[in-house]
This record gives sequence, structure tokens and C-alpha cells, in this order.
Amino acid sequence: MNQKMQWLRNQLLSMNLQGMIVTNPVNIKYLTNIRAEGTLLVTRKENVFITDGRYIEDVHNTLTLFDEIVVYDARSLTKEDFENFFLFCENVGFEEGHVTYAKYKEYMHKYKINNLVETEHMIEKQRMIKDVEEIENIKKACEITDKCFEYIVNYIKPGMTEKQIAREIDDYYYKNSEGKSFDTIVASGENSSKPHAIPTDRKIQEVDIITIDMGCKINGYCSDMTRTIFVGEVPQYVKPVYELVLKNQEQVLNDMKENSNTKLITKMVDNDFRLNNYDLIHALGHGVGLDIHEAPLLTINAETVLKENMVVTNEPGIYIAGRFGIRIEDTVLIHKGTCEALTKSPKKYVIIR
Amino acid sequence: MNQKMQWLRNQLLSMNLQGMIVTNPVNIKYLTNIRAEGTLLVTRKENVFITDGRYIEDVHNTLTLFDEIVVYDARSLTKEDFENFFLFCENVGFEEGHVTYAKYKEYMHKYKINNLVETEHMIEKQRMIKDVEEIENIKKACEITDKCFEYIVNYIKPGMTEKQIAREIDDYYYKNSEGKSFDTIVASGENSSKPHAIPTDRKIQEVDIITIDMGCKINGYCSDMTRTIFVGEVPQYVKPVYELVLKNQEQVLNDMKENSNTKLITKMVDNDFRLNNYDLIHALGHGVGLDIHEAPLLTINAETVLKENMVVTNEPGIYIAGRFGIRIEDTVLIHKGTCEALTKSPKKYVIIR
Repeated sequence: MNQKMQWLRNQLLSMNLQGMIVTNPVNIKYLTNIRAEGTLLVTRKENVFITDGRYIEDVHNTLTLFDEIVVYDARSLTKEDFENFFLFCENVGFEEGHVTYAKYKEYMHKYKINNLVETEHMIEKQRMIKDVEEIENIKKACEITDKCFEYIVNYIKPGMTEKQIAREIDDYYYKNSEGKSFDTIVASGENSSKPHAIPTDRKIQEVDIITIDMGCKINGYCSDMTRTIFVGEVPQYVKPVYELVLKNQEQVLNDMKENSNTKLITKMVDNDFRLNNYDLIHALGHGVGLDIHEAPLLTINAETVLKENMVVTNEPGIYIAGRFGIRIEDTVLIHKGTCEALTKSPKKYVIIR
Repeated sequence: MNQKMQWLRNQLLSMNLQGMIVTNPVNIKYLTNIRAEGTLLVTRKENVFITDGRYIEDVHNTLTLFDEIVVYDARSLTKEDFENFFLFCENVGFEEGHVTYAKYKEYMHKYKINNLVETEHMIEKQRMIKDVEEIENIKKACEITDKCFEYIVNYIKPGMTEKQIAREIDDYYYKNSEGKSFDTIVASGENSSKPHAIPTDRKIQEVDIITIDMGCKINGYCSDMTRTIFVGEVPQYVKPVYELVLKNQEQVLNDMKENSNTKLITKMVDNDFRLNNYDLIHALGHGVGLDIHEAPLLTINAETVLKENMVVTNEPGIYIAGRFGIRIEDTVLIHKGTCEALTKSPKKYVIIR
């Protein structure tokens, strides 16, 4: 059986669960490499993946004998088959953060389960710590993102629209990776004051500011990077804000390592922003892996302690409504006594002339 | 107050609900036009949208006074504020098909609700019947899809890869719409036997078969069309399968109208396929609107009766594993005594030479 499924079985044993229903497709991909719609059942006797006619062929091509996963077409299963999967199981785990209330009720009935037990995001928690192969994939995605940034800085000219630049980034990713890991943000001028701006038809000016938030996927694993760049020159009124964001982003890189407390780190950034009459209006960062946003979330409200081989973003930002915004973000790998920014594009005043 | 919010309030009244928590972002867009992360609360006194700093500016730009929706930044709300939203409400509705089990428990606690009541997809059911403006958007998305199909048929040449063709479609949509409404499928040769194939690096041959499943968005509304086309010639062994799929697709267009029973229609297609030793391995169709897949689902297992101004797909397909597949799909608008295919691209042997 593959290592991750074995880990899950051991975990269930220690929680006195005799089975589990896994429905989050990202967790299914993590555990089995399957990228098809369906449900993964860990039963007493075997591992089962239930899918439908559209995916059967593909799933069979993904799995190896070593995986020890039996694949069923849902249409070939009877009412009794479903009821038999968890026969003699007292407690069966489910993903309470993914399963809807309606599905929860349906599962109880369909699988005849007495006690459907919350598993408190145990797979997501395990996913926080990346193994060698996962780190390799994320590193590769970050490298391609750096190359794409270099390419796009040379590509951008005044007169182009935000949409056009976003499309060029997407196209670069399409050619060099599995594609973008989230909707690319290209926010120029006053649009840069919206942290989650959607690219518009606004044209880049002769003197302008552009925030670009971009990432791609390799084998399902994501990268995430933001740079705020300039066209023509850096306006004087922008400089103090840029320096403040950059200073904090670099300070955070100094502070991130095994055992550092992200609540404290976030608080320090927030304090420094407040001293200058700004606010940190979003999280300082988030985990990156098979999901572009995954655990842990780095905010003032969560007591997270970083561990070796976590991959998280570091993305302070300041937004001045209707005027402009600055965000600088890296994808960061946590080591024992230090950390490593996996995205390495320049941060100090990239100016397009 | 806008018409759709007014409809929802009347609905709640008739169900003896004093409030509702709406969390499905597509339902929020449907009711309010807001496209931001957040929660819509219908309380006794007012309509409330709770979002965060990233979206506040955008939401304010979307809403008008006429909408009568009060916007809050979640960070500015206290524990008491949350508890007061549904004060003196006996029954509060929620979306059991969207809210996770974990969130269900959280809401009970956070809003201090005694009785959180399932609303049985009432908003999704309402969304099945499209109004004039919604139909206009879908028609436009279908028109652009027809034009894109015409463009791509002229673009495809032997030697191109599936990925390259898919990228060209995506790019066309990017330039002429809000972008693709789902991941474009370009499945050639034996790949066409997978209904949900992901475009590969396989090169188009001098004699080949290509299934293209494509759609785009206009103001959030989707189109969905599939054509199976040929390069060089139509192999003799493919013709009987193609004719069988096409005959059924056209028969379904004859049968779809107000009050027709989709279970029966699906059964007829399934029967005809079986008589020829094939299977209908997926649904015959699905609703199309703000979601690419929405209610109703057209299968043998669901008793759906079509109504005027529903928009559904009609997409029979036959897949012969490892060899080839044929699917032909239109987006269809239901009228009183007839129906109208909104996608109008040719279906009879499109051959690229």
C-alpha cells in the first residue's frame, strides 16, 4: 500500500475509527494520486474508490497494483453493496469541513453508519508538512513563476491592457506548466488598491504602478508570488509605502523558521503598519501545496507554530482606496533554523522604461 | 429592493422562516450581483452582506441604494453583533447542500440560532427558470461559442496538439467573453473515448476524430456545446455510431418542450443505445446558467418536468474504450410547445481537409 494510505490507516487506528469516507478531491489526490470525481472509502478490509463511467478508464491508468485500491463504478453498486462497506464498523470518520450537511445525512443513511465521526482536518494537517517529492514540485512551480515574471517584465509596454498582460502570463504558464494555480491578478493604477482585483481593460500608462499576483502548477502543486512594479518611474508619494511593505516582508523572512509563532510575526507587521497609520487588512500568509490556499493560515487570530518543511506565503500589503496598493509576496519553505524564499524575483523597484 | 431579494423574502415568509443565511456564492451573485467572498443574511429588519477588507471596495461599487443591502466588514463585527442578527427569529433557513457539517455547527453557535432549517435548494430551483436578462446573457455566450467553433475548425491542422487547440479556444474566449465556462475538452483519436478527457500533447493525425467540448461566460452566464469532428475523412466504422448519436440528439430536440418528462426522454435514448449494444454512461443533460452544471439534472433517476425558460443541455454520447467516442451537445432553451437550440454549429460531418 502506498505510504500515505498507510499513514491514514494508522491514524484511524489510533482514533478508534474502523473506517473513513474521504470526499475532498484534493485529499484524494494527495492520498492516491487520483484526479477524478469520486469517493474514497477506507474500510476494514480494503481501500475503495467509487467513481462513474466518465472516469473509470482514467483512474485505472493512474493506479498501480501497489496502491491496493479497488475501483467501482457507482452504477454497478447495489443498495446492499453500500451498506456492506462499513459492516461491523462502530465509528466511521468523515471530513466535516468538506461534507455538506445534506451529504452528512445522506451518508448516514446510504452506508448505514451509526456513528459518523468528525476527523478534525487530520488529512489537511498532515498535508501542511511536505515530503521531498512535494517540495520538488513546488520548487519547480516557483522557478517557472520567476521565469514568467522575468518574461512579463520585458513584455509589458504602456498602452497594453491589464487583461492582455494577464492573458500573456496565463499563456506562458499554459506552455510551461500545468497552467495557472489561481486567477492571475494584474491590477494597475488605482485598481492596485483592490487586493483581489480582476484584470480590466484599463491601459498601462507611461507612468504607472502594477501589482501582479501569479502562480502555476506542477503535478498539482502550486506556486504563489506577488510583485508590485513600476512603469516610467516610482512616484515620490509611493516610496514610503513601498519601503514599509518591503521592510516588513524582509523582516518576516528573517523571523520564519521552525517553531516561530505566526501570530506574533503577524502582530509585529500589523503594529508597524499601524504606527504609520495603515492597516494589515488581510492575512499575512497561507499554506501552499495541492491547494493554492491551504493550512496553516497566518493571521493574528490563529496560534500557528511553523514546522520544518511547511510551505507558506509571506505577503504583507497596504491598500489606499481609490489611489494605489502595494503587495509583495513570496512562497517560503520553512527549515529548522531559517527559511528559504522559493520565489526569487527581485523586490527592489522593478521599473519598466 | 431588487426583485430577486423580494422573491426570497416572500418565499421565507411562506415557509415560516424569519431569516436565512445564504452562503453559496453563485446564489449570492444571482440574488445581488455581488461577486465577492462573503455571507448574505436575510434578517427580520434588513439584508446584510458580510465580507472582508479585500472586497469592501468592490462590493460597494456593485451595489446600488435600490438593492437595500447593508455591507459589513467581518472584522468590525463583535460577538454580540453576530448574535443580534437573528434575535427573536424562531426558524432560520440555511443551504444544507452547500454548508458543510462543520459550518452548520459553527452557525448555530455564532448566530445563536435555535432552529436552523433546511431550505431544500429553493434558490437553485428558482434559478432553473431564467428571466429575460439571463436568457440574453446565455444566448450571447452561445453565439460566441458558435463563432469560436467556426474559427477553430478553420484553425485546426494535422500536427497540432490537443493542448494547442484547447489554448486557442481559451484565448478566443478570453478576448471575446469573460472566458471559458469550464475546462475546454479537446480529445482526439482514442482519447475521445474519455468523456472528460484533459487535453494532451497528442498530435492531430492526417485522418482523425476530435471531440471538442467548449463554453464561455457572459455576465457570469455560461454556454456549453460539444461537437465531434473529423480530419481527412470519416472512417466507415465510425459512421453508424455517429448516426446513432446524432439521430438521438435530434429526436431529443423534437421532444423537449414545456411539460415533457426528462426521465422518459433519457430512457428512450438509453433504450435505443442498448438496442445497438451501447450504453448511455452519463446524464443526458443538465441545467446551464450561472453554474455550468446546475439543476435540473436530466437522467433516468430523476423525475424532472421541463418548464418554459429553462435552459438545459442535450448531450448524448457513446464511448468505446481505447478506440473512439462521439458526443454531440447543444445548449437548449425550453419554450411552451417547442424548444430552441441556442448553439447552432453544424452537426453533420464537419470534416477538416
